[in-house]
Amino acid sequence: MPVTIAVDIMSGDRGAPVAIQAALKVLQGNNQVHLILVGDESVIRPKMERSGKKFQDRWTIHHTTEVVHMDDSPVHVLRRKKKSSMRLAINLVQEGKAHACVSAGNTGALMATAHYVLKTIPGVERPAIVSAFPTVKPGKQALCLDLGATVDTSIDQMVQFAVMGSTLAQVMSDVKEPVVGLMNVGKEDIKGTESVKAVHERLLHSSLNYCGYVEGNDVFSGEADVLVVDGFSGNVALKSIEGVMKYLMNAIKSVLRSSPWLKVLALLAYPLLRRIKRTVDPDRYNGAILLGLNGIVVKSHGGANKVAFYHAIQEAVATASQDMINLIHDRVAAALQED
Amino acid sequence: MPVTIAVDIMSGDRGAPVAIQAALKVLQGNNQVHLILVGDESVIRPKMERSGKKFQDRWTIHHTTEVVHMDDSPVHVLRRKKKSSMRLAINLVQEGKAHACVSAGNTGALMATAHYVLKTIPGVERPAIVSAFPTVKPGKQALCLDLGATVDTSIDQMVQFAVMGSTLAQVMSDVKEPVVGLMNVGKEDIKGTESVKAVHERLLHSSLNYCGYVEGNDVFSGEADVLVVDGFSGNVALKSIEGVMKYLMNAIKSVLRSSPWLKVLALLAYPLLRRIKRTVDPDRYNGAILLGLNGIVVKSHGGANKVAFYHAIQEAVATASQDMINLIHDRVAAALQED
Repeated sequence: MPVTIAVDIMSGDRGAPVAIQAALKVLQGNNQVHLILVGDESVIRPKMERSGKKFQDRWTIHHTTEVVHMDDSPVHVLRRKKKSSMRLAINLVQEGKAHACVSAGNTGALMATAHYVLKTIPGVERPAIVSAFPTVKPGKQALCLDLGATVDTSIDQMVQFAVMGSTLAQVMSDVKEPVVGLMNVGKEDIKGTESVKAVHERLLHSSLNYCGYVEGNDVFSGEADVLVVDGFSGNVALKSIEGVMKYLMNAIKSVLRSSPWLKVLALLAYPLLRRIKRTVDPDRYNGAILLGLNGIVVKSHGGANKVAFYHAIQEAVATASQDMINLIHDRVAAALQED
Repeated sequence: MPVTIAVDIMSGDRGAPVAIQAALKVLQGNNQVHLILVGDESVIRPKMERSGKKFQDRWTIHHTTEVVHMDDSPVHVLRRKKKSSMRLAINLVQEGKAHACVSAGNTGALMATAHYVLKTIPGVERPAIVSAFPTVKPGKQALCLDLGATVDTSIDQMVQFAVMGSTLAQVMSDVKEPVVGLMNVGKEDIKGTESVKAVHERLLHSSLNYCGYVEGNDVFSGEADVLVVDGFSGNVALKSIEGVMKYLMNAIKSVLRSSPWLKVLALLAYPLLRRIKRTVDPDRYNGAILLGLNGIVVKSHGGANKVAFYHAIQEAVATASQDMINLIHDRVAAALQED
């Protein structure tokens, strides 16, 4: 089934060139994908004419020169940047012209704009940011939400996150009854904050396939398909994970450079090191979904390179191919009736 | 200055042999250290007689056969295991016979026992778990607290954590005015929960060298010497970091085994891989301090190997060498007067 994705070409740290290369790679790999490239036509057209001629019936340009910058406040963007590539990409989803949109623009502005333009699904109070993590179980991913859309998360909102996450896991990973876990500081019943305990009680009595408490390391253990966490802790954990990966890459690089002998060994072992790098590459896991809105919005890392931005667009394609929004709508409505 | 450390030999997952080997390594490396080895004399003495003869004036055995198990509840341990190696090691600190103690036993039991036996320093409501993380800045560590001693942390308690963390950084890293950051989901003033904003206001008006909000990745960025976080988010982040490291080690191992050609390359590059492993080895960062008590208690990972347990004892030695408790006492008292 053909899928149309609106791509905000302009808002990432690395600008249009990276986004255009990623778009070309997506068009090349899947002839069911149509892309609407939102941004400055004078920048986009020459590059697309040169390299994207053979896909020309599958891309169009939606021209605008206004761009959201990384330090623009959400309020400023909402009020003053109504013609930005970010806003127009989201508008295309709202108008039904695209099944989903992708942006590498600043998270606060993207959240605010998406929330304002698309509104939440009935029964969902707040959107959540969800991302897929690899696990030690081959081929198995874990979805984790919320990663920072909502701080001061209420008990009702956490339950809604659980229902939305479970639905997304069904759609994305083709799991019939995804295992849902609730993030806590330990697995025992006595552990946790009062509000975590209250969410636990609610989930125990829900129709979800709830496995109880999970811990931070379970993001990667494959014990659960969906991990529900408040937006504050989820955001701190996500960024800590990014931090330690950066630290490790840095440490490995300095070992490789630390002596002539190790440099030679590194050259010899280059195919091995490249293979390791590809395996542990966080770029493959780029693309977080803003979940709970009347439309699909995928957030790429601001600093995404071509490979990372490609994966973010692919995430939008995978999710938009399904009738996600209606599914979440129905599941949330059913869950509300359970209460 | 001679330092005496009580070592709970029995409570770790790997039992007495690992703890004894670690103790021997500490005795060998520092002739100012005295160790009281708490546990089953029939197990400890033969090993120490064999390998520790030349240090025999610097170790003694405090005999007991009772052991705290990993699944013992804190309440059970408090009430029924008053002769356990864990309890006796903490008692030795309380009685002034050891400057600090180390245990690899279960965290809940250790926290509860240490809190009960040692009590908190006046002005400190709750203890915090603090650990040092390596950063991308060479030679620079960052202390992060609380990593899970207290959930539902109050504003007052967070401010106390900041004061305690700053004092510990002065002692451990010899920094005059440690930079203190407050964990949040972004650096902008409008970000965060209501309680984080309230702590921020308090820290802005404190005498600490407060740099404002930090994010999860700053655990490793070296931007701050001390990162203050509520125990829930801190624990989730800590375990997520452990989870991703385990995932990465696992992924690298499966690459090394994935083809005969890569296996040969891995053999060739063995010195390089070993060096990388040593550089990124989490064992070197084993040893979390329970801070805020009238005595120093160091918690080792339950599954610590010889190297990791060695580092935990070394952490106790480094902290006990200073007059930490009095320093924290004075700093907290001064901070309370500021309010």
